[in-house]
Amino acid sequence: MKASLDCIPCLVRQALDAARMASPDPLVHKRVLCEMLRWTGEMDMDEPPPILGQRFHRWLREITGIEDPYRSAKDRFNRLALSLLPDLRATIKAAQDPLAMAVCIAIAGNVIDMGTNGNLTESEVRKSIDEVLAEPLTGIENGFRQAIAEAQDILYLADNTGEIAFDRLLIEQLSPPRVTLALRGSPVINDATLTDARYVGLHEIVKVIDNGSDAPGTVLEDCSPEFVRRFTEADLILAKGQGNFETLNDEPRNIFSLFKAKCPVIAAHVGVPVGTYVLAQPNARLLSSEGPGGSKRC
Amino acid sequence: MKASLDCIPCLVRQALDAARMASPDPLVHKRVLCEMLRWTGEMDMDEPPPILGQRFHRWLREITGIEDPYRSAKDRFNRLALSLLPDLRATIKAAQDPLAMAVCIAIAGNVIDMGTNGNLTESEVRKSIDEVLAEPLTGIENGFRQAIAEAQDILYLADNTGEIAFDRLLIEQLSPPRVTLALRGSPVINDATLTDARYVGLHEIVKVIDNGSDAPGTVLEDCSPEFVRRFTEADLILAKGQGNFETLNDEPRNIFSLFKAKCPVIAAHVGVPVGTYVLAQPNARLLSSEGPGGSKRC
Repeated sequence: MKASLDCIPCLVRQALDAARMASPDPLVHKRVLCEMLRWTGEMDMDEPPPILGQRFHRWLREITGIEDPYRSAKDRFNRLALSLLPDLRATIKAAQDPLAMAVCIAIAGNVIDMGTNGNLTESEVRKSIDEVLAEPLTGIENGFRQAIAEAQDILYLADNTGEIAFDRLLIEQLSPPRVTLALRGSPVINDATLTDARYVGLHEIVKVIDNGSDAPGTVLEDCSPEFVRRFTEADLILAKGQGNFETLNDEPRNIFSLFKAKCPVIAAHVGVPVGTYVLAQPNARLLSSEGPGGSKRC
Repeated sequence: MKASLDCIPCLVRQALDAARMASPDPLVHKRVLCEMLRWTGEMDMDEPPPILGQRFHRWLREITGIEDPYRSAKDRFNRLALSLLPDLRATIKAAQDPLAMAVCIAIAGNVIDMGTNGNLTESEVRKSIDEVLAEPLTGIENGFRQAIAEAQDILYLADNTGEIAFDRLLIEQLSPPRVTLALRGSPVINDATLTDARYVGLHEIVKVIDNGSDAPGTVLEDCSPEFVRRFTEADLILAKGQGNFETLNDEPRNIFSLFKAKCPVIAAHVGVPVGTYVLAQPNARLLSSEGPGGSKRC
């Protein structure tokens, strides 16, 4: 998915958030912000924004010497999400349609995206979960249900820390032995890595791998050969989050994207209001509750 | 009030909004955005943001040849506000504290600020008014009430189109013969000029003047000598909106600022959450409902 001019103010704001996460020094904040102003002025609008995000966050880690600026925020949201799991697992078990409920909760967890909201609070996460419990998705699109039923080899592309605890609940509904979970190759924003997958115990129920890349999405040219082989072999790919959607949107594979549309550009691209729970098939054919299937507006 | 690094992403977003208002051409949008990226990279952070806003909007009008890019939006909000006046005037008349109700409605009208929200809708304006009617301010700070009672010569600095129709309701409570209303000297964003004051009939009840400047605030060095004389002579100045607050915040005059805190930087400066109705005295001594007086949180 190409960038839009609307991405530019957002990237500038993200740069300031990230600078503050990496350093308490106002001079660093100003330097980082000015660098992003220069980069966005020269931005290749044919590339998805996560490409520039990768380059920026790599540079930020280099100049500050901080390998994982979001580490403490990541730990906080992992802990929060884990603390919510027992009740949410019981809710799914008691639901009339446990798969649909698990999908909804996994998408609600996608609110934990510090790229779109650097000042995210725990109460916003609880609100997102409460919203989905108050008005759960009552049915999910048949194509998705059928794809899940038929798949032999599911590749699940994680997005953020904290969120992956909620992903665990969905993976538990998917017959875990056929699932491989892929994480980012190294820290970028608050995206989940192998460390986070292990923290929420996902390594105990599925095979976990990393994609070898530090992009906040899935940029296949930047991923490891091992990951690309798994990506090519899988007969179903579940891609969480906007970054994976932006970077895989045009891939001719059997992909379902699951995310909360937090960004106005992406929301407009899939034709839904900001805040919508999106379950979209490759090439962005949106399956919404207004359409043939079942994404949810919230 | 000095600029903050947080002003930069916001100014970049404002530039894109303004470019789209002035031209349908994506090449113009990109050129305008890139120019703002360059300007904000070199921005003097000791100046209030309306100084850069003035320079930018002057340049935008020059390169597009459009004298008043927001004209059609301004007309729309003037019409909307005028249509609401009869009911609101009756509400004020029936209120236990008509002055407090008029203050609240005038501040609620400050939501019509296309600098902070270029995509403002009529329903957002109606919502802002409905909120204030549902939970009106029950008392206003004694210092403000006393200042109003004692003033012989009130200078009322308007902010936006549409909003000035609501200002009319407050001015009607102020014994209009002692009031002079000042507008921007020429169009900038959706700020009100003499044209708008006449459209809502304010010239029929008070003396109306312009300040000779095209800054989206009150930059005294840029205003006409006639305006500066009026500014110096007035024994009470009521300054509507964030732009006037940012530019007059350090002026040692008897000023009350009235605005809705839509910007996180200004909200933090006065120590209130975003969305708060602010009635502040010179040097930003905030008079909140928690303090000695009566601004309102909504």
